[in-house]
This record gives sequence, structure tokens and C-alpha cells, in this order.
Amino acid sequence: MPRVAAVIIGNEVLSGKIVDQNSPWLASRCHDLGLDLVRVVVIPDLIEVIATEVNRALDVAEIVFTSGGVGPTHDDVTMAGVAAAFGVGLVRSPELEAALRERISDRYAQDEQGLSSALRMADIPEGCELLWEGDLFFPIVEKGGVHILPGVPKLFRMKFDGAAHRFKGVPMAHRAFTTTESEPAIANRLAQAQDRWPSVEIGSYPQYDHKPWTVTVTLDSRDDAALAICTDHLASVLSAGLIDPS
Amino acid sequence: MPRVAAVIIGNEVLSGKIVDQNSPWLASRCHDLGLDLVRVVVIPDLIEVIATEVNRALDVAEIVFTSGGVGPTHDDVTMAGVAAAFGVGLVRSPELEAALRERISDRYAQDEQGLSSALRMADIPEGCELLWEGDLFFPIVEKGGVHILPGVPKLFRMKFDGAAHRFKGVPMAHRAFTTTESEPAIANRLAQAQDRWPSVEIGSYPQYDHKPWTVTVTLDSRDDAALAICTDHLASVLSAGLIDPS
Repeated sequence: MPRVAAVIIGNEVLSGKIVDQNSPWLASRCHDLGLDLVRVVVIPDLIEVIATEVNRALDVAEIVFTSGGVGPTHDDVTMAGVAAAFGVGLVRSPELEAALRERISDRYAQDEQGLSSALRMADIPEGCELLWEGDLFFPIVEKGGVHILPGVPKLFRMKFDGAAHRFKGVPMAHRAFTTTESEPAIANRLAQAQDRWPSVEIGSYPQYDHKPWTVTVTLDSRDDAALAICTDHLASVLSAGLIDPS
Repeated sequence: MPRVAAVIIGNEVLSGKIVDQNSPWLASRCHDLGLDLVRVVVIPDLIEVIATEVNRALDVAEIVFTSGGVGPTHDDVTMAGVAAAFGVGLVRSPELEAALRERISDRYAQDEQGLSSALRMADIPEGCELLWEGDLFFPIVEKGGVHILPGVPKLFRMKFDGAAHRFKGVPMAHRAFTTTESEPAIANRLAQAQDRWPSVEIGSYPQYDHKPWTVTVTLDSRDDAALAICTDHLASVLSAGLIDPS
């Protein structure tokens, strides 16, 4: 199954100025598409850190998304960071430059420095592919599985969804129980079920916000047969405290 | 300044079942306390991955918080992961065992297996300190700067706040402007200011959700003199598009 990792780039997330909306959204979309999100990291706008983390992401995933740091200002260093990850330089893409000029030449007709800053967005790592997907004037810049997406949530989502048809996953089926038994009380029963059906991922999540305290037991699997048997088994061994979902 | 890193442990976050509330909250608290949050990583419930990421966190920060994976069920492997990070084993803490027994003996009087599962929470990496902070029956387990916190947001917050007096930071002062000029138009002025006042961190954040599109320029610094001059300078060079905050 394709594995996905995300590299969220931005001092503004680490300083608490902005809450990252992209990684929770990505987690949910990957889940729906049947892709396994295996790692998210949030890092500052520093070229060397971006390079290191892009490589760490590629160590564990075939598909990597970066978020943020792709604008025209001094704090936008993601392109340089991805280039450093691959040990290549930045090159001006004639195709991107043309797309940018077409879009913005009028706006910067009287502002040569502004135009020149805007065209910095056409400087990308050597050897990238441009994915012209969705209804966007600017393509996704991709290299070796790394998809360089903007941090602005609206644009991040549009670009991801434009490219989503490229990623072939198999969604997991999901079951859940909620019980008033405590985690220690059910721990052994869960561990035994997990041992018996390793293709089912069993999770246990206590809730202490309001009484009665409860535990939600989740089952996720791509193995329908095992999921069905494991679900029946847990329904029977957890029956004492089960909360009727109705 | 003390640097902080967070290791968020949980399949449920990566699968999108639960949105991580702890890292945004931590970012905001670190900001208030004047601690520099430099890295957040979200990883699955796997001992080797936890061990690797705890070490990577310690490479860049003096203070590390883990979130999640500390309960009594089979998917709670954070203690084992932190132990592996330090190359030590798990040992039963008599002090924790006593605290747990005092709290829960009645509840599990008829359930030896439940009691035994609950006492797994007293198995911690060798050589930990127990920080009895705040109004909690269970201490923070700490080793070499790594503070092992629960994933349940309410408990994460209580434990962090109990220990916060240990972390001596210096808050940054913050300024911001919002302008209707575009990022490319102001990029050069920002870059020049950044070069001139390196002790001020200048950020630039475009907003495309509603018209007029705007850019928010932020200034953060612990250097009050530089911040004051840089703020005056930017107020003057950005004056064309500035939006009155009132």
C-alpha cells in the first residue's frame, strides 16, 4: 500500500501563530483514499532542516508532501531545501516562468522588482516534473515522489485533490465499540485478539472528559474476513460494558 | 533559550481518527513561556520509530515532550520506545506501583488480571526521575530531558502546566502589519529589513480566502531595541498598502 509522509514547513506553526490545518486534513484524505500516512513532521524555515526531513520522509514513504514556504519572500526556502535533499541546484523553469508571466505581467507592469520577486517562484529543484492537474494556473512541482505544495490551506487542498487520482490506495474498513469497562480491565482481552488477528489493527482510546468514563476500541483492516471474525469476537468478550450506539 | 521538541505518538492521529490537539496547544504555551518549539513529529505506535524520533528530538532540543501511548493496553508502547532510545530496559517502579495500588486496588479487588494490566503503567525506563508536580496522583516520568506525557488532551495539559515552572524561557515580543500590497511587491523590502535586523524574525503570510487579498507581515524578537527600529522602518516602507487595524 502506498505510504505517505508530510513535511510541514513554517515557523508560524511552531510558534503557535497558525494552527496547521493541512496535516489533519491530509490524514483524513489519506484515510479515505486508502493511503497509509506514516509520518508528519513540523519544522522551521531552514534549508538544511528541510533537506534532512525530506530525506527522512523518503526513507519511510513513497509519496511525500511538503506544505509551505513556496512564496516569493525571504522566508520561502522550501524549493532550496528540497533541492538540497536531492543534492541538486535550483533552476529557473521556462514553463513556470511563462505561466507566471502570463498571469501577472499586467499587475507588475510598473514594478520590475515585484515581477522579479514573483518569478523566484519559477526557481525549482533541477529535474522536477510539473504536474498540471486540476483547475490551477500553477502546476504541482514534483521530484522523486516529493510533491511541493503551498501552505495556504485552500491551495494545499486544491492541489492535493487535483493530483489524488495518481495515488492508488485501498481503504481500510473500520469498526468501533465503546465500553464502560476500564482499559486495564479489557487490556488482556484486546491483547489476545490482537495476537490472534494481526491483520486487524486494534486501538484503545480512553475518554475522561465526562462521566461515565469510557473506552473506545477501534478495529481497522484491509482483511475483510479477519475484520468480521475479530469484530464478532470482541463484541462477545467485551459485552459486559458495551454501550449501545443508539 | 531552551528549545523544545514534541513527539506525538499515535496511529489514531495519522489515520485521521483523532485530530492532535496537543501540539498546537504546546506551541501556544511554549510561545507564552518564551520557549522555542523547534520540531514536532507525529509517528505510529512502534517501539523502534519512537526510539529513533526521541533521539532526533534530543538532537535539536533540551526539553522533549512525548504525547500518547502510556496506558495499559497492547498499543501503549511509549515507555518501551523511550527506554530503547536510551538503550536501557523497562523496570517496575516501586513508587509508581504504590501510587497505582493506592488509587485502584479497590476497583480491581475482584479482577487480578485488570490489576496486573494497570500495574504495567509502573513499568518505566531505567533511571527515570519522577516529577510529582501539580495536583495529580501520577507523576511526570522524565529521563534525560524527555517528559513522557499522556495523549489525552486534558491530562497532557494538566501535566505540562504542573511542570511549566521548571522551564525558564524569555517570551518574544511580537508586532504585525497587514497590507493589501502583494508578496512579490513587498518581498524586496522585507528581505532588506531581514538582512539589516537579523535578531528580528520577519514572516510573511498571504491570505487568499476573501478579497481584498492581504499579506500579514509578522515581527518576533527578544531584542527590544532592534524590534522597535525594525517595526518603525517597516511601517514606513510598507505604508502604501497598510490596513488600519481599527
